Amino acid sequence: MKNNEIPYKIYLSEEEMPKAWYNLRADMKNKPAPLLNPQTGKPMTEAELAVVFCDELVKQELDDTTAYIAIPEDIRKFYRMYRPSPLVRAYCLEEKLQTPAKIYYKFEGNNTSGSHKLNSAIPQAFYAKQQGLVGVTTETGAGQWGTALSMACSYYDLDCKVYMVKVSYEQKPFRREIMKTYGASVTPSPSMDTAVGRNILAEHPGTGGSLGCAISEAVEVATSLEGYRYVLGSVLNQVMLHQSVIGLEAKAAMDKYGIKPDVIIGCAGGGSNLGGLIAPFMGEKIKGKADYRFIAVEPASCPSLTRGKYVYDYCDTGKVCPLSKMYTLGSGFMPAATHAGGLRYHGMSSTLSQLYDDGYMEAVSVKQTSVFEAAELFARVEGTLPAPESSHAIRVAIDEALRCKETGEEKTILFGLTGTGYFDMASYEKFHNGVMSDYVPTDEEIATSLSRLPQIDE
Amino acid sequence: MKNNEIPYKIYLSEEEMPKAWYNLRADMKNKPAPLLNPQTGKPMTEAELAVVFCDELVKQELDDTTAYIAIPEDIRKFYRMYRPSPLVRAYCLEEKLQTPAKIYYKFEGNNTSGSHKLNSAIPQAFYAKQQGLVGVTTETGAGQWGTALSMACSYYDLDCKVYMVKVSYEQKPFRREIMKTYGASVTPSPSMDTAVGRNILAEHPGTGGSLGCAISEAVEVATSLEGYRYVLGSVLNQVMLHQSVIGLEAKAAMDKYGIKPDVIIGCAGGGSNLGGLIAPFMGEKIKGKADYRFIAVEPASCPSLTRGKYVYDYCDTGKVCPLSKMYTLGSGFMPAATHAGGLRYHGMSSTLSQLYDDGYMEAVSVKQTSVFEAAELFARVEGTLPAPESSHAIRVAIDEALRCKETGEEKTILFGLTGTGYFDMASYEKFHNGVMSDYVPTDEEIATSLSRLPQIDE
Repeated sequence: MKNNEIPYKIYLSEEEMPKAWYNLRADMKNKPAPLLNPQTGKPMTEAELAVVFCDELVKQELDDTTAYIAIPEDIRKFYRMYRPSPLVRAYCLEEKLQTPAKIYYKFEGNNTSGSHKLNSAIPQAFYAKQQGLVGVTTETGAGQWGTALSMACSYYDLDCKVYMVKVSYEQKPFRREIMKTYGASVTPSPSMDTAVGRNILAEHPGTGGSLGCAISEAVEVATSLEGYRYVLGSVLNQVMLHQSVIGLEAKAAMDKYGIKPDVIIGCAGGGSNLGGLIAPFMGEKIKGKADYRFIAVEPASCPSLTRGKYVYDYCDTGKVCPLSKMYTLGSGFMPAATHAGGLRYHGMSSTLSQLYDDGYMEAVSVKQTSVFEAAELFARVEGTLPAPESSHAIRVAIDEALRCKETGEEKTILFGLTGTGYFDMASYEKFHNGVMSDYVPTDEEIATSLSRLPQIDE
Repeated sequence: MKNNEIPYKIYLSEEEMPKAWYNLRADMKNKPAPLLNPQTGKPMTEAELAVVFCDELVKQELDDTTAYIAIPEDIRKFYRMYRPSPLVRAYCLEEKLQTPAKIYYKFEGNNTSGSHKLNSAIPQAFYAKQQGLVGVTTETGAGQWGTALSMACSYYDLDCKVYMVKVSYEQKPFRREIMKTYGASVTPSPSMDTAVGRNILAEHPGTGGSLGCAISEAVEVATSLEGYRYVLGSVLNQVMLHQSVIGLEAKAAMDKYGIKPDVIIGCAGGGSNLGGLIAPFMGEKIKGKADYRFIAVEPASCPSLTRGKYVYDYCDTGKVCPLSKMYTLGSGFMPAATHAGGLRYHGMSSTLSQLYDDGYMEAVSVKQTSVFEAAELFARVEGTLPAPESSHAIRVAIDEALRCKETGEEKTILFGLTGTGYFDMASYEKFHNGVMSDYVPTDEEIATSLSRLPQIDE
């Protein structure tokens, strides 16, 4: 151990846990662009959004002026079942790398959903319950978000209808059974439950489905059933708000020990975990109170920040959701079938897109073989088996630490370990067998996808 | 929340973690009977055991006089990567049951092996390394022990050869891949690597293997390769010694808040987790310092304490290991194929057998449908998805809490939540589909198995 003062794991006490979420948008000089109604081209109103989302969540979605939003006591009670999450000093990784850098990670995988998704599933279910709703609908791909939501709905005694991409439903029966254990109904999408599903099945009888189709089905069910709303696990402002609990805890734990990170690293798919981790640090940077480097890490197979365009685009491939201004590869972009795990979203949260455009944040993309190499090294020395998504951040944290070894700099690195990889062993198996692909989309593929962007006059 | 003073999770600080294991045998009035050499019928000597096990572990195995054995600093360092484990107050379960009982559980699933097994894998690998060995061999069924051992060997840079029961190897590819991620070699058993394996394959070409056969192969490889020893994850005294870290932490956390448990409950297969959890409490009871009720919970399909005999028997079905005096169903006893998860050992640790025979501990058996009902209820209110093994303890803890509801008693219940159920979803699926069997062996089946016990003159 290099520094006896810092324990392996810093746990806040339950009293030290955040009592309010931090709404970074309130402190941004250039606010993220508003969601637009695809029919009218005008900003979505509260009333329009309330057809799909719970009232309180619509308010949070549109609020870009209130910096702190109180976390209701009932949500804080649920948070205490698995939070505070540990801030871990990666002593063993540092020793293995022989780096002078000090590496910390905030570990969000210590709950049954296996990821940070639960942080937003709880408030989304809570506000639905508070509004007197019967239930919520959602889509899930790999199943982390569906698991988190089913856990939250079980706790608040809400009905939970999950539309799971059919190919995942069949290939990941364990994820499906976990959701059922928590009382959710899980339907393979496309299904015969919805007009959207029936149409797709009529056109493509053998299809394995897609996330875009599952979203469309979940939205159709939510808007056609009395007492239901639709919920979403990433991309939205409200989700990033809830995920700020990650960054607030991490910062409180670091402040307690007088630690200041130089570099903060997170993987980026829709952007909610990264946005949550960096929020309080970014707030200080914007206000000129402190300086930090922020690095968003995305897969080379789905590089929205590093190779996308900052424009208005559909949030979903089915084009039923509002338009969002974001870095995007085009809503029709599909990462190659060989892409492992999550981080397969074509766009990026509008808040992170704006921050990146304003130069507050860097972005890099990494190939998946190098990601799994980092994952395996991390597992062997730090014990925890990381999710492929989280391992993108591990890759870049290791690269930064190795750079410190070359230069002799004693930088402090913080990264987000968003989840565990127990349900991703099929991808690890490909890695072990040397059959993992490092396919990167060609410029032409991206250009073709971007040529189909919606036409919006800003 | 009923009591604002007790947090949801009590974490000891790293300084408060135990610095020595507690060797309960030192305080027992009637010591557990010694292991016997099956050839000579005489107690196994240090030299005989050292052919199979590491020297330091042999000493621990035979030592029934030293009450506290220091935990080497290097092991404590590894423990700090995932320990202290939380002692959780089950507020939500209490509320759901509307019981005046106070329920606590010590959660050992917060590490990648998903169970308490790592507590003993680490010292076993450490002492092997200290002795200058090249590697260790072991067998694994469901894979928890193999995963834990591969993690420990990866950390200490030891070769790890796991013989995995062939049917599990094929049905649980994810467990296999986790072990590979940690660098272990995993061989389906029976294999062509060993004489034992080749003989069995010649006789039964299509066999799916058995734990007994895998043990025999692992022992053969360990004793025939230079620089290798065999390690085992349960049943042995040394394992129960290492697992005392569970009870020591639980007791320290309870003492810190002035909590005294009335009833302590654990699931019992080979007995190491139960033995570890109860050790310091049982020590007090033996010395007359405090009184506690202890309840061992075993599956109705493999009821060694409640329906077995207290005699000398083989520890393994292959009859290559020493004889142990224990409650046993006979080494040829095999739980029905419909039995889910672990806890399928025919015998019970000799220490727990002696304590049970002396009346210090109670035992009950439970059927698996009721176990999964408890598991699902627990998951829905407490969040964590429990392993089927741990859910045996949950079942009885719930039953005790419901009894308190009837009587109005405010008892304090402590149980061991030994692991998570992420890799047991196939069993949950059976439960959801209503096809779970509650088969219980007949008296005749048990009598037949017991009629083949070895003949030993004590």
